[in-house]
Amino acid sequence: MGLTQRQEKIAGMVRSLGPITGEQIAERLNVTRAALRPDLAILVMSGMVEARPKVGYYYTGKNVMSMLTDQISRIKVRDIQSVPVVVTSSTSVYDAVVTMFLEDVGSVFIVEPAGILTGVVSRKDVLKVALGGSDLHKMPVKVLMTPMPKIVVTSPDESVLAAAKKIIDNEVDSLPVVAIADHQETKAYEVIGRLTKTNIARLFVELGEGRGGEHYS
Amino acid sequence: MGLTQRQEKIAGMVRSLGPITGEQIAERLNVTRAALRPDLAILVMSGMVEARPKVGYYYTGKNVMSMLTDQISRIKVRDIQSVPVVVTSSTSVYDAVVTMFLEDVGSVFIVEPAGILTGVVSRKDVLKVALGGSDLHKMPVKVLMTPMPKIVVTSPDESVLAAAKKIIDNEVDSLPVVAIADHQETKAYEVIGRLTKTNIARLFVELGEGRGGEHYS
Repeated sequence: MGLTQRQEKIAGMVRSLGPITGEQIAERLNVTRAALRPDLAILVMSGMVEARPKVGYYYTGKNVMSMLTDQISRIKVRDIQSVPVVVTSSTSVYDAVVTMFLEDVGSVFIVEPAGILTGVVSRKDVLKVALGGSDLHKMPVKVLMTPMPKIVVTSPDESVLAAAKKIIDNEVDSLPVVAIADHQETKAYEVIGRLTKTNIARLFVELGEGRGGEHYS
Repeated sequence: MGLTQRQEKIAGMVRSLGPITGEQIAERLNVTRAALRPDLAILVMSGMVEARPKVGYYYTGKNVMSMLTDQISRIKVRDIQSVPVVVTSSTSVYDAVVTMFLEDVGSVFIVEPAGILTGVVSRKDVLKVALGGSDLHKMPVKVLMTPMPKIVVTSPDESVLAAAKKIIDNEVDSLPVVAIADHQETKAYEVIGRLTKTNIARLFVELGEGRGGEHYS
């Protein structure tokens, strides 16, 4: 839908001057009160503006953006997550990087048997030690991995919005998608997926092309 | 805003039975015509349903997703682009990677004097040669860069949606934002910015939190 230019103008007026009466708005726009009625009705219906008897119209702060917000926050991690790429902690850095290239991923997750998450290694981590001239064949990946509990994770039920915020706030490229598992009598994370900036960029494209509906679970 | 359950129901009814009059809808829902009026107004306003005098309401096929599409496609690359990080083609790979770390970017753009784009180098490119055991101090960055005209670029006026699609389709992490410049009597690209998956993920978060409005230019 979108608002007409006049509706946008009225909304702006209510925002900066409200509470303001219909008569005052009409006067400022140099139109009759009756001519304004449909526009005001639409603004009130949209929730952007509210009318209070004997006070006038005031701005609620809600707008068309809130519908967008609704739609976006309904999409869950499970709806767009990728398959995780994992190695064990005794894998050499070299082999971990080979895995990254073969699977074309920017990070691999380090797991112990039963898929319990113990670390994450990114291209950036490897590049740092490669610059230092270390022998990547001999170095096990656990030496340079970001270990638990420092790893930021997400779960299938989390909203993509909340997960994307974690990616941005923690400056990482991806999050392991985990389920809580019982492991050696303590709670641990089992890796069941991967959420990346690529997943989010792809979702953005799908939403922008009107193809996001398939993700609403 | 989002639709209420009753509005969703009416939309479904119009979709399957339309064109249908307000009276017919009221009868099926067992409410008065007057009680329906606000719901129908909202559906018409949303563009999902249209009213034709003496015919009734019919479904347009548009829905809340199209509003999302509208909003998203109005955001331009210039509204969210980052500053480009550049080196010259004689820079060593080692120094290029140091620049990547200092600026915390995943790619650097290779430019000639006057800022003309000649190449792009990513962490992935460097990691590949580092694995091969090359001396990164001696190798100039031009040896491993992706050269023009193979580089996928965007411009400040392009929609973020179109640019994001290029990122996904070409499997790259970022695009140089360029302006067309006259250079040595041929057209060339001057690098003026950088659009990354991070920019897109951040925009996604802003839209999801209802803070995207600031980007509409």
